[in-house]
Amino acid sequence: MVRLRLDLGYDGTDFSGWARQPGRRTVQGEIEQALGRILRLAEPPALTVAGRTDAGVHARGQVAHVDLPVAALAELDRNRRTTRPAQPGAGVGGAAGDRPGGGLDGAPEGVPAEGLPPDVDERLATLVRRLGGVLEPDVRVHRVCVAPDGFDARFSALFRRYAYRVSDAPGGGDPLRRREVVWHNRPLEPDAMNAAAARLLGEHDFAAFCKKRDGATTIRELQRLRWVRDDGGPLVATVVADAFCHSMVRALVGALLAVGDGRRPVEWPAQVLGRAVRDSGVHVAPAHGLCLEEVGYPPEAELAARAAATRRVRTASAGGDAPFEDE
Amino acid sequence: MVRLRLDLGYDGTDFSGWARQPGRRTVQGEIEQALGRILRLAEPPALTVAGRTDAGVHARGQVAHVDLPVAALAELDRNRRTTRPAQPGAGVGGAAGDRPGGGLDGAPEGVPAEGLPPDVDERLATLVRRLGGVLEPDVRVHRVCVAPDGFDARFSALFRRYAYRVSDAPGGGDPLRRREVVWHNRPLEPDAMNAAAARLLGEHDFAAFCKKRDGATTIRELQRLRWVRDDGGPLVATVVADAFCHSMVRALVGALLAVGDGRRPVEWPAQVLGRAVRDSGVHVAPAHGLCLEEVGYPPEAELAARAAATRRVRTASAGGDAPFEDE
Repeated sequence: MVRLRLDLGYDGTDFSGWARQPGRRTVQGEIEQALGRILRLAEPPALTVAGRTDAGVHARGQVAHVDLPVAALAELDRNRRTTRPAQPGAGVGGAAGDRPGGGLDGAPEGVPAEGLPPDVDERLATLVRRLGGVLEPDVRVHRVCVAPDGFDARFSALFRRYAYRVSDAPGGGDPLRRREVVWHNRPLEPDAMNAAAARLLGEHDFAAFCKKRDGATTIRELQRLRWVRDDGGPLVATVVADAFCHSMVRALVGALLAVGDGRRPVEWPAQVLGRAVRDSGVHVAPAHGLCLEEVGYPPEAELAARAAATRRVRTASAGGDAPFEDE
Repeated sequence: MVRLRLDLGYDGTDFSGWARQPGRRTVQGEIEQALGRILRLAEPPALTVAGRTDAGVHARGQVAHVDLPVAALAELDRNRRTTRPAQPGAGVGGAAGDRPGGGLDGAPEGVPAEGLPPDVDERLATLVRRLGGVLEPDVRVHRVCVAPDGFDARFSALFRRYAYRVSDAPGGGDPLRRREVVWHNRPLEPDAMNAAAARLLGEHDFAAFCKKRDGATTIRELQRLRWVRDDGGPLVATVVADAFCHSMVRALVGALLAVGDGRRPVEWPAQVLGRAVRDSGVHVAPAHGLCLEEVGYPPEAELAARAAATRRVRTASAGGDAPFEDE
């Protein structure tokens, strides 16, 4: 078996979220079907993802892994497309490495897993192109590579970085961004939102901002939450944590929007956090403003240890089944 | 009568271009209808636009003007919405002035046209909000102001700036940008494209890159045409000229893409330009990569002179009806 890492993005508008569900169009379902079809597998393979996203939530820097029989890669030699001729200094492999999603630290250069064909990189570039031909344009796999030893898309992750985008322009925001920027019908004051956000940073029980799941911990380390007005236009929040519980970013954003437009005082979100129970005054912000921008992993040598530690912590704190990080 | 300047943007995907056409959904038609409805005019008023865009072409910095009876503004006092309360330091007028599209040089601060009500700015802010409620979300009017003396959205313009966006990522570009970024199925070399573009700058007869119209000059001054790879992702061309003739940017881009992916030599676009006749080897690039980003105007004191000069030059060179700049 070989473990592949997939770097991907999607417009969540027309998906019922990431997770496969019978009868629904989901990102996981579409990619698994495409992989099964391209590699002529008897069953679609199962993907493991870094951040399961809700219906309507987007991703630019989503990461998943899939385990496949090495022999399945041979299928990529059949009908190999040659529409992207290798050019001096701009070959397929080299060009892909210069692009976003192409910066996997500790990529297994020169240390292929046992049994891998020597031209595995070329075959995986073919896989990327074939996925581009099979998938609808609202989901794109930007890169596929052999995962380094110990890599687990979910448990090896050090952090998830989300962006939340909101425009308070009086007549409405940029029409070309309307699928990923929420429009807010009152002027927003980013300084107040940042003052309120600063009081939420650090390790806390975020139960007040999470949809509770049985047996799942709501303790998270919020590493960054900061609003910046993007080039005079929409406000963009950068939100980073080790992991998130369900609807956490959107609930945090909903609380901060109430501060930003003057409906709540700066102290309010921290007071809600301190009560550690769901607060009906917190409105979960709309899904379409949220985008998973990046998943961070440690250097290759620490991947396996990180995965083991994450599994241990989650299992212990949950007292049972490990919780999933969701947005 | 009062002349209003409108700053606006649209997602061109679902429009049959800017120009009003019977039975078609056009940007001009939608805004004219909305203005007529909000101001309760007997007929929709006629808009004059800086850059007429083709079907599928987008705009972020489009500018138009409209002449209205001063009395029509009184309609805005009826049912005036108060959903955006004035806040200390963040009033409607002040906030709008900090935003894109709000930077009209020489705005008529403190010098209202004769007969204008003293609260005209407040009424026009109401108009922006009401347009936001009436128009579909794929077209937004970001600002409406009283046009300075001598202002003509079309003839006073000094330059039009367009962007053309294309991604050559092997598996496809960012799904969230697919409506405004064209995907090109071969790697592109921006240095070669810029070398070719540099030979096209200056005042030339661009007949080779224009759809010919009877009586219309094809002499234009191409002030800037430069490709930059945006943050490691798509390539973005900035294209600036005094004005453009029909399909000119897309034909120039089509020629440069052929250089960028190695199908044509760097010298080729300049050779085509030199022949001054349409070249069947030039493929007009897809409309959805093109966006009108900015229209530049001179300082207020020079607006009328600029408009008169533009009219004179266009009429003389065309030997009749003044040509329209189109993309």
